Amino acid sequence: MDTRFVDALRAVVGPAGLVTEAARRKPYESDGLAYLKRMPELVVLPRDTRQCAAVMKLCAERSIPVVARGAGTGLSGGATPVERGVVIGLARMRDVLEVNVEERYARVQAGVVNADLSLAVAPHGLFYAPDPSSQKACTLGGNVAENSGGPHCFRHGATTRHVEGLVIVTAQGDVLDLARPRVDPDGFDLVGLFVGSEGLFGLATEVTLKLTPIPPVTETLLAIYTSLEAACQAVSRIIAEGLEPSALEILDKLTIEAVEASVLAAGYPKDAEAVLLVEVEGSEAEVAATTRALEPILRSFGAFELRRARDAQERMRLWAGRKGAFGAMGRIAPDLYVIDAVVPRTKLAALVQATTEICRARRLKLANVFHAGDGNLHPNISYDRRDADELARVVDAGHEILKVCIAHGGSLTGEHGVGLEKLDAMEWLFSHDDLAAMCRVKEAWDPERRMNPGKLIPVRACMETRAAHAHEREAAP
Amino acid sequence: MDTRFVDALRAVVGPAGLVTEAARRKPYESDGLAYLKRMPELVVLPRDTRQCAAVMKLCAERSIPVVARGAGTGLSGGATPVERGVVIGLARMRDVLEVNVEERYARVQAGVVNADLSLAVAPHGLFYAPDPSSQKACTLGGNVAENSGGPHCFRHGATTRHVEGLVIVTAQGDVLDLARPRVDPDGFDLVGLFVGSEGLFGLATEVTLKLTPIPPVTETLLAIYTSLEAACQAVSRIIAEGLEPSALEILDKLTIEAVEASVLAAGYPKDAEAVLLVEVEGSEAEVAATTRALEPILRSFGAFELRRARDAQERMRLWAGRKGAFGAMGRIAPDLYVIDAVVPRTKLAALVQATTEICRARRLKLANVFHAGDGNLHPNISYDRRDADELARVVDAGHEILKVCIAHGGSLTGEHGVGLEKLDAMEWLFSHDDLAAMCRVKEAWDPERRMNPGKLIPVRACMETRAAHAHEREAAP
Repeated sequence: MDTRFVDALRAVVGPAGLVTEAARRKPYESDGLAYLKRMPELVVLPRDTRQCAAVMKLCAERSIPVVARGAGTGLSGGATPVERGVVIGLARMRDVLEVNVEERYARVQAGVVNADLSLAVAPHGLFYAPDPSSQKACTLGGNVAENSGGPHCFRHGATTRHVEGLVIVTAQGDVLDLARPRVDPDGFDLVGLFVGSEGLFGLATEVTLKLTPIPPVTETLLAIYTSLEAACQAVSRIIAEGLEPSALEILDKLTIEAVEASVLAAGYPKDAEAVLLVEVEGSEAEVAATTRALEPILRSFGAFELRRARDAQERMRLWAGRKGAFGAMGRIAPDLYVIDAVVPRTKLAALVQATTEICRARRLKLANVFHAGDGNLHPNISYDRRDADELARVVDAGHEILKVCIAHGGSLTGEHGVGLEKLDAMEWLFSHDDLAAMCRVKEAWDPERRMNPGKLIPVRACMETRAAHAHEREAAP
Repeated sequence: MDTRFVDALRAVVGPAGLVTEAARRKPYESDGLAYLKRMPELVVLPRDTRQCAAVMKLCAERSIPVVARGAGTGLSGGATPVERGVVIGLARMRDVLEVNVEERYARVQAGVVNADLSLAVAPHGLFYAPDPSSQKACTLGGNVAENSGGPHCFRHGATTRHVEGLVIVTAQGDVLDLARPRVDPDGFDLVGLFVGSEGLFGLATEVTLKLTPIPPVTETLLAIYTSLEAACQAVSRIIAEGLEPSALEILDKLTIEAVEASVLAAGYPKDAEAVLLVEVEGSEAEVAATTRALEPILRSFGAFELRRARDAQERMRLWAGRKGAFGAMGRIAPDLYVIDAVVPRTKLAALVQATTEICRARRLKLANVFHAGDGNLHPNISYDRRDADELARVVDAGHEILKVCIAHGGSLTGEHGVGLEKLDAMEWLFSHDDLAAMCRVKEAWDPERRMNPGKLIPVRACMETRAAHAHEREAAP
């Protein structure tokens, strides 16, 4: 990087806000999509919106590409560095700026860790509902970029339902202050548009988030099955009956084994083919009624054991296994490819079957974790990235699983984003005109396409659109 | 209009699809914002997406502005015709294209009337949740344009929460088929962005909507108060207690009088200063528990009578008064200005007080209807538009009420949109940079600014942005 540029950045963020040495840059070379790596040329760690704006202006002046990064827990390569670019890390922006208990919202810096917000507002009887499995590490800014989900999003909705305002630093270094929570969006819903834009529009530096009252009563049930299909069928019936648990999660046999062999052992029985974790929240009467309705359904599909957490500690233990499942799989092989596959929830059983066959045909070790209520399956393939042949089979399996999702009316991603991982697949799902419309919206924010380039939207489609767009403008009277 | 243009349109939509005679064009000269009128030069009534695309292409070729219109029940002038433009009416596009009971969605043409969709899917135990007061007339396409609300949106959320897909005809006449419901939006959320864009991006011709199971039990309570403030306080307490009724509506004294004098007489007592209508939906146990918790709260703020609908017929009668309130006010004066004011719901009492003073100072007849749970107040001013002085006072009161909303951290509109009515107010709320960002997104869809020009986004801000934008592009290397 040009010395004058680095000096100018240092003047903004101070020496501690620059990561220049190769050894210290290394942790930034990938996010959770570990098989794609690129060493960043420079990492900048601003402290606040003002510093972010100054950094973005310096980048704009020199046409330098920018990749934003929270905690790097993303799984689609959204934070993978790009050529000639800088990485702006938001890890030092960890202040909770305001908690408004009466109006039930919090304003935070984008680098605040998801779980820390719930901890901060718990004394007021409130929590922040979206709970990605990485919630003890992932940042709220990263959650905004990816429109992250989590087990309890079945009831509460994904991140976009909870973002009430944003402060955005544009590609040009201007600050849009849309932080004030609005009962309804006025004008175009720029905040809603920004959520899930995977860093392609600009940098969200502050986030205003809706807080949710902690439910008076929570009940957690664990149903144990000798067949994965039976667990899936139980979920379908629960939804068809109109019951509204807050979470419906399935873990398959290999996942159970990994969890039970780890320090997180949750007491899941090792001879089970599947466990279904069901949580019910609400008033005492509501929870009691829903639980009463759930139990016969869970049993009717052959649950040979039904456990009910007796207290908060037991509940946390049942959940610790689920939330620690990805980590526990480290026991199986050095690397884990967490696929994010999503279909209409009525098609879940078909997706599980297809996924199993795809992995078996490629001799891959597959463990499944499901946000079953959302039709969101995480096939987890354990592999060793040093084995080039195995890696190729893993990537190929990921593509095939995506194609199955599309064929069943599903989406490309339930909660992990498109990033680098699924860039090509955008053209499988969207027409040229659809992609062209997205490109135009992208260029409205970032005409030079410097923000997280090469992610989310296929470049070729963008280039074609640009040409067509220019032609139209010329033709206009 | 140029004869060749009209002939080309006729070739697309047939003679019955064109409204050319002045007498037949007259009903299109305004929407529900009756004090702003402009005679349209031509009204086109296409039958399907293909015809819409052909019409839009013809307009694009001649750079003719386009205003879309559903049933014309909008209240902010969003469907008011513009100079040199055509109105595209969607009233002949009334087909329900698909009902998917298992996945709980329906695909409809944009001209389907809101209430007709719920009727169509009722045999399957489903309904469409957002219920604007105009639901027996307003179209789902219009609901998409305005992101419409309704009493039950307190529980279910406004239109944007229920739109799962769209077919969009762009300003250029291209068709974006984003109709297939997605578990999560992939790429940028173009569908979410389009909802509430008030016709400035393009034409939504088909809408995929989430359907909701009809709740097993519905309970409707009417609490009668001798003070409006007491009714507001009861609402605040209900929300603070974390209770979740599906609707919380207040009618004030003048509204009650108008309703009771009309054919819709709902049996509201005429000596009441306010009635609070509360609806609770859910399972039997849930409804019973919530109702048990509600009753002492309603009484503790001085409800001198508490009624409970004994059956569906009585419930419909209580609601008929609320839904017919706007119509009933026709008894008070020839015209009604329905203001859409919104503040954080904890500020509702302050807004009511300020609104009352603003109208008293201007000698205006004010009746209030509230979506109290949402902090959304509809001050209804009865007036006679032939009285120019009174009209000026009405418009001035509307501006003052908006300023009070902004001062209390509210929005410009809860559910009626900005349209023509609140165009100036966009500059009171948003900075130049905020508006510039909106203009850029607008121009990404419609670079010529032919779609519903002069609405929603102040033109001056757009022109300034355009100049600045061009300058940046030149400066870019």
